Amino acid sequence: MTKGRLEAFSDGVIAIIITIMVLEMKVPHGDDLAALAPLWPVFVSYVLSYVFIGIYWTNHHHLMHAVERVNGRILWRNLHLLFWLSQVPFATGWMGENHFAPLPTAAYGVVLLMAAIAYYFLVRAILAHHGRESRVASALGRDFYVVAVPMAFINRWVAYAIYVLVAMIWFIPDSRIERRLAKD
Amino acid sequence: MTKGRLEAFSDGVIAIIITIMVLEMKVPHGDDLAALAPLWPVFVSYVLSYVFIGIYWTNHHHLMHAVERVNGRILWRNLHLLFWLSQVPFATGWMGENHFAPLPTAAYGVVLLMAAIAYYFLVRAILAHHGRESRVASALGRDFYVVAVPMAFINRWVAYAIYVLVAMIWFIPDSRIERRLAKD
Amino acid sequence: MTKGRLEAFSDGVIAIIITIMVLEMKVPHGDDLAALAPLWPVFVSYVLSYVFIGIYWTNHHHLMHAVERVNGRILWRNLHLLFWLSQVPFATGWMGENHFAPLPTAAYGVVLLMAAIAYYFLVRAILAHHGRESRVASALGRDFYVVAVPMAFINRWVAYAIYVLVAMIWFIPDSRIERRLAKD
Amino acid sequence: MTKGRLEAFSDGVIAIIITIMVLEMKVPHGDDLAALAPLWPVFVSYVLSYVFIGIYWTNHHHLMHAVERVNGRILWRNLHLLFWLSQVPFATGWMGENHFAPLPTAAYGVVLLMAAIAYYFLVRAILAHHGRESRVASALGRDFYVVAVPMAFINRWVAYAIYVLVAMIWFIPDSRIERRLAKD
Repeated sequence: MTKGRLEAFSDGVIAIIITIMVLEMKVPHGDDLAALAPLWPVFVSYVLSYVFIGIYWTNHHHLMHAVERVNGRILWRNLHLLFWLSQVPFATGWMGENHFAPLPTAAYGVVLLMAAIAYYFLVRAILAHHGRESRVASALGRDFYVVAVPMAFINRWVAYAIYVLVAMIWFIPDSRIERRLAKD
Repeated sequence: MTKGRLEAFSDGVIAIIITIMVLEMKVPHGDDLAALAPLWPVFVSYVLSYVFIGIYWTNHHHLMHAVERVNGRILWRNLHLLFWLSQVPFATGWMGENHFAPLPTAAYGVVLLMAAIAYYFLVRAILAHHGRESRVASALGRDFYVVAVPMAFINRWVAYAIYVLVAMIWFIPDSRIERRLAKD
Repeated sequence: MTKGRLEAFSDGVIAIIITIMVLEMKVPHGDDLAALAPLWPVFVSYVLSYVFIGIYWTNHHHLMHAVERVNGRILWRNLHLLFWLSQVPFATGWMGENHFAPLPTAAYGVVLLMAAIAYYFLVRAILAHHGRESRVASALGRDFYVVAVPMAFINRWVAYAIYVLVAMIWFIPDSRIERRLAKD
Repeated sequence: MTKGRLEAFSDGVIAIIITIMVLEMKVPHGDDLAALAPLWPVFVSYVLSYVFIGIYWTNHHHLMHAVERVNGRILWRNLHLLFWLSQVPFATGWMGENHFAPLPTAAYGVVLLMAAIAYYFLVRAILAHHGRESRVASALGRDFYVVAVPMAFINRWVAYAIYVLVAMIWFIPDSRIERRLAKD
């Protein structure tokens, strides 16, 4: 089996995920800045997820570049990765709508973690299928730290970024947001 | 005619189907676990359908791999298969929203059955176009049981999985769901 | 310029159009047949549009198969065709929601007509770019009636199908629909 | 790295963007012309954005045609361009729903400007990766004005088109719109 359709299908799913998130930003009814203001946490969480999905797409691009052939196990581990990536728009919307409240933010972190784990198992299946002496194994041996380890750091960095955002939200005395939160 | 565009178009439609289903999971307004609770039947039915669509995609992948050329009949039988697969998000949403009630669950089963029948007719059209002595016929002869027969078992398995889920719902004394059902 | 991306982009847009229409079928809240009943005109108009878009996709497939190269004019006439096809979900939803009322049905016909005209201009641009002595010209000379003329008949056939449906709706004494129309 | 997946992914995202905008046109409940009337600013802004996205897609097509290979920087600058293009449906919807009011129209202009800047940086990254003596550099040297300069003019032209539309809205004494605006 060739890798062409796996790449095409993954590109399709990731392209849809990355643009579905925009649908979460509902067009406001007013035409002034006050109408846009409630949207900013949604927008910030959207940008965060866009970068995150972008990182996965570029890493997937690098990873599949070295792959020569695929089997059923690789197809399913790739579908498993896409499953967790497809949860990102939901987690993003929930976190954004609730202004980075603890539980939605933790749920967002869990989705990122599951995606990282799924990615790790995909790499393992590819290595098992090509053998330790193959071109892809040596390429991955070189690139593994480029691909897998930063993924863990990225998760941590994303966590830090969220913590900084949450801190900013709680420390910046934005009375409009306070009033809005009071209403909820 | 080459099979390239048939594969690309099918990949596009299946990628959209598999991600559209996520849109059925509306982002809840609350930020606690109670806000997530009503979503769990939707999530369970979504995972079920994700696996189901994934099975069709990998089988379609295997099937088209052996195909050498296509004709109008194959294009239309493929469109027929995609039609029934595109009904899966609707059937999934209806079944999930009604907590696996009898009629929506039966409707879901009908959609799965129609997809299996459409797949069977697609295989027949491919065999008729390539001839009984062709490479694809011998490959399908070997793979036919791998491809077509499990499809029937999968449907039965899906039915069993749904029955187990329904049983769990009726036996587990989850008062929150009971109250929610009472309201509907 | 090669035709690869034009085909891939068209496949993407048509795949999205054909699956977006399913989103028009909102999941009903009830779990009995009465909950499904109001959906049937939406479903009928959806099946009609699915077949129609399918006809365009297979014809586009045949047309581009003979094309050797593209230019800016062909790209834009293809975008023009995709524009009118992308209006089909809206026209379908409007017609279905209003039970094939005269104006929405006429609007649906206009969208189909504009798509047929756009297709005709696309064929003309391809012929102009390849020359009258080219392989594509002779292939189109043979296929032109296969491609362009039936398109007009299909429109008429679609019109007839709609007329039959409208007649059925007005003649079948379905009191539920009558009551529903009375409410609107 | 080859450019195949960058093209496929960009085609997927742009195809989704261009069709998502149709979803902004909600199917009206009435079946007469009065039901369509409130939709016309949404439709006009949609056509404007369709043409705009179409310009970017054809230019991207021309640009990538000359590219021989890609690197991480090009992947990310392409993602940056797609990010701003993915904001177009939101900006279009906001501008259309508010009948080209000043702030939404300005926001629409900002999104177009950011996309043009992102496109410029993408071209720069491609030139840096291929070298000043490469085939792509000489092709871009010839095409640069075809690609980059009109982009600025297009933005200005789009601005002009919007100004003309706004002027028409304020000068044409359409009492229905006046009443509708009075209600908002």
